[in-house]
Amino acid sequence: MNEDFVDRLRLIRSPGIGPVTYRQLMGRFGNAGAALAAVPDLARRGGGAPPRLFSREAAEREFASVEKLGAKYLVLGQGLYPRLLAELDDAPPLLIAKGRLNLLDAVTVGIVGARNASAAACRFARGLAHDLGRHHVVVVSGLARGIDTAAHDGALESGTIGVVAGGVDVFYPPENEARQKAMFERGLVIAEMPPGTEPRARHFPYRNRIIAGLSAGTVVVEAAPRSGSLITARLAVEMGREVMAVPGSPLDPRAQGCNELIRNGATLIQNAADVLEAVRPIEPRVRAAAMPFEHAPEHLNGDDALGVVEELLGPSPVPVDEIIRLSGASSGAVQMALLELDLAGRLDRHAGGRVSLRPA
Amino acid sequence: MNEDFVDRLRLIRSPGIGPVTYRQLMGRFGNAGAALAAVPDLARRGGGAPPRLFSREAAEREFASVEKLGAKYLVLGQGLYPRLLAELDDAPPLLIAKGRLNLLDAVTVGIVGARNASAAACRFARGLAHDLGRHHVVVVSGLARGIDTAAHDGALESGTIGVVAGGVDVFYPPENEARQKAMFERGLVIAEMPPGTEPRARHFPYRNRIIAGLSAGTVVVEAAPRSGSLITARLAVEMGREVMAVPGSPLDPRAQGCNELIRNGATLIQNAADVLEAVRPIEPRVRAAAMPFEHAPEHLNGDDALGVVEELLGPSPVPVDEIIRLSGASSGAVQMALLELDLAGRLDRHAGGRVSLRPA
Repeated sequence: MNEDFVDRLRLIRSPGIGPVTYRQLMGRFGNAGAALAAVPDLARRGGGAPPRLFSREAAEREFASVEKLGAKYLVLGQGLYPRLLAELDDAPPLLIAKGRLNLLDAVTVGIVGARNASAAACRFARGLAHDLGRHHVVVVSGLARGIDTAAHDGALESGTIGVVAGGVDVFYPPENEARQKAMFERGLVIAEMPPGTEPRARHFPYRNRIIAGLSAGTVVVEAAPRSGSLITARLAVEMGREVMAVPGSPLDPRAQGCNELIRNGATLIQNAADVLEAVRPIEPRVRAAAMPFEHAPEHLNGDDALGVVEELLGPSPVPVDEIIRLSGASSGAVQMALLELDLAGRLDRHAGGRVSLRPA
Repeated sequence: MNEDFVDRLRLIRSPGIGPVTYRQLMGRFGNAGAALAAVPDLARRGGGAPPRLFSREAAEREFASVEKLGAKYLVLGQGLYPRLLAELDDAPPLLIAKGRLNLLDAVTVGIVGARNASAAACRFARGLAHDLGRHHVVVVSGLARGIDTAAHDGALESGTIGVVAGGVDVFYPPENEARQKAMFERGLVIAEMPPGTEPRARHFPYRNRIIAGLSAGTVVVEAAPRSGSLITARLAVEMGREVMAVPGSPLDPRAQGCNELIRNGATLIQNAADVLEAVRPIEPRVRAAAMPFEHAPEHLNGDDALGVVEELLGPSPVPVDEIIRLSGASSGAVQMALLELDLAGRLDRHAGGRVSLRPA
């Protein structure tokens, strides 16, 4: 276990440090060790108590448990870490993966949909996954009931990746234990959370972003309005990936979500050939995607930007761009100040890159 | 029966003079009488025998039969003639209409589809037509079996227009006799052909162009690949009208045509609200469409363009624009030469405004 890895693991597991903050700290300080060392001081400057950093011992325990499971860590920006996923602003700094890691090197397509999908839709998802597999596409899904299960089953022979919301060793739903174990052997199971983590409601949107982020495109098969599958589709759009949907009769209420997606611009999919045609323009990015964040630490200027930024912030979320414009400080100085407030537990980050001061 | 009308009727019923030639003759000569008088000479100049013009007596007989049916003529560019239809290059110069003529003044939407459509699709078409009627949309279709019949039935209360391929008084298919008679009273039936004409295979594409041309948009409900409904959809695209399609499960082979239409850009439709949203941008054209062809005769120049144009033409269709460019003559002179060749029976007109010399 090398020192840099221990530092990375400690950094991302420390309370209050999510993937975005992690990425910014790495950008500022160049490596996880320097970032860890800087965090207490940054938090104090931001006006908060220093966070309780994840201990070296805890990191060693987690590492040992991952080793014991026969799983591997994937490190953002290194080795086998999936290139398309690394494009995300909030790409998971570490993933835990168990199974055939070489599946990460293929063209990937997500297939998601309703847990209570119709038998016909499940049959369609299974057939689509199977046909995509015959064209060397690896099928990504979430190991949930319904469409996810059908998609994994259809692609088990050819290659499939299951992204779970809890720990890689936690079976949810319980009836998928045998399937998940089969995928440890013949497919790949990926988790962002440490082993043993029971999935909670708040984990699922994070899981969904990994499915969308891993995939050149995502196919939605029967999704209820306002369902998690539609969230995955929206995330895929935001990532610039292809969103595809399987249509159905307007007389079938379960087809509504997908028909609406198509009305809003998703590509209508009838078979594997349609999927292949849709993802072809994105496929080269699987390999060509740039390493997005491993650059040298920036020169820190504007030490006194913190006070200005703090004054500009209030309880209502405002775009960071606006803070930069109003502050007159450099973008780097403002980002630094925000980072300090963040680590001090005084900043809330919102959708669309907006921030607000956390009420005391 | 005024003289101008008799001349128009004689002109369009004369052999070899279709809607495009009619429009060009009217453009050149300003009125049908002058056009009729010029035709023999034009044909001779083009190197053919003068066509047998439709006689005054035949025109009077047809007029009397239309009167007897209680039907009315609609004259392109005059009175109640539908403005959207008048936009077409090959708009019918005359239509025969029986029923509530005021339906021509409403916003119109075509609903077309398979003759052997599923019961579910027919139910959907009937419900859609009914709901559109509640929003004062007049539903246009072709009085065929299946989807057409369902669409007319759904909109019979609110207003529906049936476009037939044969004469307005010919019932095809025979089982639609009662329906067509009901539409004489409560709807409107339109024909391009003279009364008594039995519909033949070649009439149906012309009928389809009238459905598409009358309508701000056309909805396709279950259409087989390479079916007449898809031809109607293509014509609507070419006319700049909205094309809409009702999706279905990829597992249902009857949904293939519509799903492909959607993949190619048609708007996915689930209900009447979707249709109304789609046609709203086109609706104002129903009233605002310009009278396209009633302008003064052009000054004829380039009397000797005929020889040049004839040399440039061959058995392979070429765009008229290219003939104009290559000839060095004015557009007017080239069009005049083409008209002469056309009337001499020596020109074939093809899709996309291309022309070729007819093999001797």
